[in-house]
Amino acid sequence: MQIPDLPKINSDRLWQRHLDLAALGATKAGGVHRLALSPEDIAAHVLIAGWAGESGLTVQLDAIGNMFICRPGHDPSLRAIASGSHTDTQPPGGQFDGSLGVLCAIETLETLQDAGTETLHPVEAVIWNNEEGARFMPGLSGSGAYVGKYDLEAMLDCRDDTGLTMRDCVAELQKALPSAVHRELGVPFAGFIEAHIEQDLILEASGNTIGVVTGMQGNRRFHIIVTGENAHSGTTPRSRRKDAFVAATDMAVALRDIFWDEEDVVRFTIGKFEVGPGAKSVVPGRAEFFIDFRHPSAEILKLLGDQIEPLCDRMKGPCQVVVEEISSAAPVAFPAEVQQSIKQAADARGYPNQAILSCAGHDARHLAEVCPSAMVFIPCWKGISHNEAERAERKHVTAGAQIVCDVVTILACKD
Amino acid sequence: MQIPDLPKINSDRLWQRHLDLAALGATKAGGVHRLALSPEDIAAHVLIAGWAGESGLTVQLDAIGNMFICRPGHDPSLRAIASGSHTDTQPPGGQFDGSLGVLCAIETLETLQDAGTETLHPVEAVIWNNEEGARFMPGLSGSGAYVGKYDLEAMLDCRDDTGLTMRDCVAELQKALPSAVHRELGVPFAGFIEAHIEQDLILEASGNTIGVVTGMQGNRRFHIIVTGENAHSGTTPRSRRKDAFVAATDMAVALRDIFWDEEDVVRFTIGKFEVGPGAKSVVPGRAEFFIDFRHPSAEILKLLGDQIEPLCDRMKGPCQVVVEEISSAAPVAFPAEVQQSIKQAADARGYPNQAILSCAGHDARHLAEVCPSAMVFIPCWKGISHNEAERAERKHVTAGAQIVCDVVTILACKD
Repeated sequence: MQIPDLPKINSDRLWQRHLDLAALGATKAGGVHRLALSPEDIAAHVLIAGWAGESGLTVQLDAIGNMFICRPGHDPSLRAIASGSHTDTQPPGGQFDGSLGVLCAIETLETLQDAGTETLHPVEAVIWNNEEGARFMPGLSGSGAYVGKYDLEAMLDCRDDTGLTMRDCVAELQKALPSAVHRELGVPFAGFIEAHIEQDLILEASGNTIGVVTGMQGNRRFHIIVTGENAHSGTTPRSRRKDAFVAATDMAVALRDIFWDEEDVVRFTIGKFEVGPGAKSVVPGRAEFFIDFRHPSAEILKLLGDQIEPLCDRMKGPCQVVVEEISSAAPVAFPAEVQQSIKQAADARGYPNQAILSCAGHDARHLAEVCPSAMVFIPCWKGISHNEAERAERKHVTAGAQIVCDVVTILACKD
Repeated sequence: MQIPDLPKINSDRLWQRHLDLAALGATKAGGVHRLALSPEDIAAHVLIAGWAGESGLTVQLDAIGNMFICRPGHDPSLRAIASGSHTDTQPPGGQFDGSLGVLCAIETLETLQDAGTETLHPVEAVIWNNEEGARFMPGLSGSGAYVGKYDLEAMLDCRDDTGLTMRDCVAELQKALPSAVHRELGVPFAGFIEAHIEQDLILEASGNTIGVVTGMQGNRRFHIIVTGENAHSGTTPRSRRKDAFVAATDMAVALRDIFWDEEDVVRFTIGKFEVGPGAKSVVPGRAEFFIDFRHPSAEILKLLGDQIEPLCDRMKGPCQVVVEEISSAAPVAFPAEVQQSIKQAADARGYPNQAILSCAGHDARHLAEVCPSAMVFIPCWKGISHNEAERAERKHVTAGAQIVCDVVTILACKD
């Protein structure tokens, strides 16, 4: 069908909703602490489902806790054009990571409703469950289970640090949304667009408003357990210690050397590191840590990642070490034609824009495997993200939502 | 008065009581998890008070939660000869650390009761509260408050990791022992003897049964807080990170170099090390750790300990660091005449013995400041302590208790 006039989004409504959503799990320092399927996250789903209901849109929930808001198209036999992101945050995280993409998606549906714009394809907004992986490992699990990459039952059996299963938490979400319609996993899309803050400094530095995301770097994640022997810190001489902290820090420092690159493209992070028993006067018999390694090149991912296990083994001293690769994802390239649609929409609205690589993982990684997908980035203050100080400007939020609305509308009107 | 015949302790009773005490907080691996004033530790006090009651001995409690079992002497105006140790353990710890000294002390009183032996001085058995410092910081706080070294109110205001104050926990102990008589802090002693497992390999290697402890190494303890900035692990380049884990591990490794000594006399331990927020995909903005440094030489304690703060400052990279010295103790030398009494008692019983330095801190450190004090060591399997595998042989436990009983009796009969 012919592309209709592209309606303007409602910037005031969008910003108010941003504020309302950011209030759920708000921290004193201006961030958000909203773990996947926590009471705060369930409240976020209820809030957004309420907006959908007020606009006459239907809400669906699937077995892994993804929520869908649906606007019918002219041809109900066609696959939907979807947009969305996630409402869970890091503990604590910021106001925009995830929330922005969800707000742009629902604003798109509302704008089409307000304008009475008819599309050929159905249009949907999605909240993917447990993107951050901060509560249940691995992350991106809602989208991963939806596209069939993760096993549903295994994901539902995942436990958080307190022993609760994702199954129990999804049941809580279902209870909180009694009128949501059940949706099967894997219902295919005709396209997927995800808006997100850049989480880096490139757009801020260039002064561009819109990043047309070309693809996503790949990653490999590792779990390392070092076992030594608890001993008395006052009596046990160094030569007789099996100090797991010493071995683990030797590993961490040696790994840092191997992963050092002049170009500063390698992303190597040890974000979780625990020592047991963790008493001040006990030589620690146990240390455990996680490596998050990301790079745009599949070759580098293999070359460096494969060195982790042998290096840890060399540095273990008198301790034992077990290295497990817990997840990996290959680098992703988004289809050129969807990138082109985003660039054209930005040009048409007069938003300066540029091509950009996503250094973070997003749900669009999984969607890219089953439908033409792409991402829209907006600038983020100082590149600060996964941090309570994460900020984006209102005018950039408006621009991002407008581009999502325009691109989704254009794609939803294509035969 | 003349030294009476020295009665023999009851080895069967002693070992049975060891088993009964080790059952309180017993772990599957054969250790004990009995934090100070936990329900298990209070049960230990109730058990021991019950033994005292059955033998007609009185029980006293002071304001910091130390428990005293008292046997009157011929001259009630004289100060008591005391013996004892502690019932709290590391989380988890072993069956003997602390418990041995308490069991030897109560066995001494029981033996004197059974034999009807009269002493000039009163004789007391003491359970010092919170020796390990694993629940409330600092450790040795029961004996420290008793001798006036620690402020009572400050110690009672200490909180454990769950926010409970020591004040609340002492009240629980008092509730569990309603017939215990109130005792003032600081009631002076004429002498103090503490039996303990050696927590090292020296006696095992030499084949000696009794260690006549000459003194105790000193210690300095530090708390280091490193503050960086939480950031996204996928997007934030190395050059822009303020990674508190990186800075803290650089400090830990550099400190280890400075504290390395060829002779292996330095005891340098980082036993508690925590990273925040501790999420796998967040560059950590916070790291915190504790240094436990011990040495027999006051000069070395000063020389090396004073290097910690400047070194941490040099290694902090883009982060901030705060170094606080949280406690210190000078090396202790026990009086030669009390050492001599122990040696003579061991010789008289035919126990091979040797002079030995205590590498661990014990309550006797504080008592040594207010009365003639000393310690009796027995061998400990492979030197393993602060560990569930901690073991001592029954024959060595018997020997230790016999020497405590003999020495306490001799001291308690001196004018």
